[in-house]
Amino acid sequence: VTLLVTGAAGFIGQAVARALARRPDLGPVRLLDRRAPIAPADARFSATAADLTDPAAVADALDGVDAVIHLASIPGGAAEADPALSRAVNLDATLRLLETLDARQRPSRFIYASSIAVFGRLGAQVDDDTAPEPRLVYGAHKRMVEIALADFPRRGRVQGLALRLPGVVARPRGDSGLKSAFMSDIFHAAADGEAYTLPVGPEATMWLMSARRVAENLVHASGLGELDGGTLTLPALRVRADELVAALFADPAQVNYAPDPALQAGFGSYPPLRTPAAEALGFRHDGDLAGLIAAVREGA
Amino acid sequence: VTLLVTGAAGFIGQAVARALARRPDLGPVRLLDRRAPIAPADARFSATAADLTDPAAVADALDGVDAVIHLASIPGGAAEADPALSRAVNLDATLRLLETLDARQRPSRFIYASSIAVFGRLGAQVDDDTAPEPRLVYGAHKRMVEIALADFPRRGRVQGLALRLPGVVARPRGDSGLKSAFMSDIFHAAADGEAYTLPVGPEATMWLMSARRVAENLVHASGLGELDGGTLTLPALRVRADELVAALFADPAQVNYAPDPALQAGFGSYPPLRTPAAEALGFRHDGDLAGLIAAVREGA
Repeated sequence: VTLLVTGAAGFIGQAVARALARRPDLGPVRLLDRRAPIAPADARFSATAADLTDPAAVADALDGVDAVIHLASIPGGAAEADPALSRAVNLDATLRLLETLDARQRPSRFIYASSIAVFGRLGAQVDDDTAPEPRLVYGAHKRMVEIALADFPRRGRVQGLALRLPGVVARPRGDSGLKSAFMSDIFHAAADGEAYTLPVGPEATMWLMSARRVAENLVHASGLGELDGGTLTLPALRVRADELVAALFADPAQVNYAPDPALQAGFGSYPPLRTPAAEALGFRHDGDLAGLIAAVREGA
Repeated sequence: VTLLVTGAAGFIGQAVARALARRPDLGPVRLLDRRAPIAPADARFSATAADLTDPAAVADALDGVDAVIHLASIPGGAAEADPALSRAVNLDATLRLLETLDARQRPSRFIYASSIAVFGRLGAQVDDDTAPEPRLVYGAHKRMVEIALADFPRRGRVQGLALRLPGVVARPRGDSGLKSAFMSDIFHAAADGEAYTLPVGPEATMWLMSARRVAENLVHASGLGELDGGTLTLPALRVRADELVAALFADPAQVNYAPDPALQAGFGSYPPLRTPAAEALGFRHDGDLAGLIAAVREGA
């Protein structure tokens, strides 16, 4: 089984590469991004630079591939600023990957990194029955792909699974295009002994997962049995801002709260989350706040 | 206000043209299809042949247009047989219409003919809270456009509304690409005094609306106040096959039932339908079976 990882130079992509490197039982891995990703020092890995908006590049990238973990995307803030670019990458290039796989005379598997952004406004609880109503370009395109993905297994050759990822921490400082950057930046401030001003209040709640845990979940998905094109919301640890601050900072007074109403509403008001469907299939969050912080500090 | 009707040579498109011709209060109407549609004898109407998969044709078609009723689509059976064609027309061309309107420096309105095909498998009841889970290519693309449409009002210039149409009767005999053709063909058999074999059982249930009523609903939508990009399931008359047969045929023994399990499941098992949201905005079905049959006989 040859596995292709798209977006492999990105934060989650690099974590997935390391998770795959820890799995000697798996076969060849092709890492792909616009710039050639860094491959682990492991003979099974190769790295390729390709632009997925180029149909010829997509065909080349998929040659000989049996399974795909598709991470490449334009993030939320950048998608909102440039809906046409989001359509080209987040929608069209993804559909082209699926269509190219479907046109081949061999079965393949497609693990798609969707996002909790599909939910839009969040009610009192989110669970496996919550109907997605995206409210930003990024979430709309993610949801459109989920629907398309569900249509492929019936056509015959592409078995797919969409996983909705929560907030993944701790992304590198200054990782562009993310409105939720504060969720990661506070980890860096704590690690570097710096003061930090959170753009949400102390009572803000977030759904978080370490990059290591996200990567393990994506690799787990690639090894599951029959995939039916369905969508799973991954479990996530629901963390209060003040509890995270207390756990991260020796002196919590180093953190100020200056809530931005839009950020608080969009990225600091996550209700309780129930994900029995994903848990029944073996997907896991980081366990508890200490586990999350340890996984972040350890790195992916 | 200049209104563009796409798919205007089609069965519903011609009904919409006639409904617009009955409204002297409305402004210019541009009828568009791959072949030039037949325009009513009315100076407000013009007819154009254009292929909406051609971006230049889309730009020309929208020049000077304030509102669109977008009917052009590849129907369900044809979409299932050729998913790439469905993607090109039902998804890409529709998104291009929206994006082209959005890129202009003027507001516009977009009435989108979606379909009950978005629901896929139907539960014990369908209402305004039922989550769509499309199970065929056609329904998947319709649902993807609904999601995209909801994203545009926030971007600023395109006010949209998606209306989910039920089974529209009576389409011309041999109208290609429709798995639900029997719903229309039985009207023609009755009108022509012919025997007919239904591919569903006597207890089969369907959601039906006359073409005249569908057209009135679409024109009504184009005149509503602020549109928020939302989706409404139109009301529909829920009709049992044997009741329709009894109302249409002087001798119901002219009709045989030879249920095809796939057709029965897909097009003959419609549960009760509740559509309070659409009704509150003035959308209507044909009232009762006699009203439906009268509207079909009268023609659109």
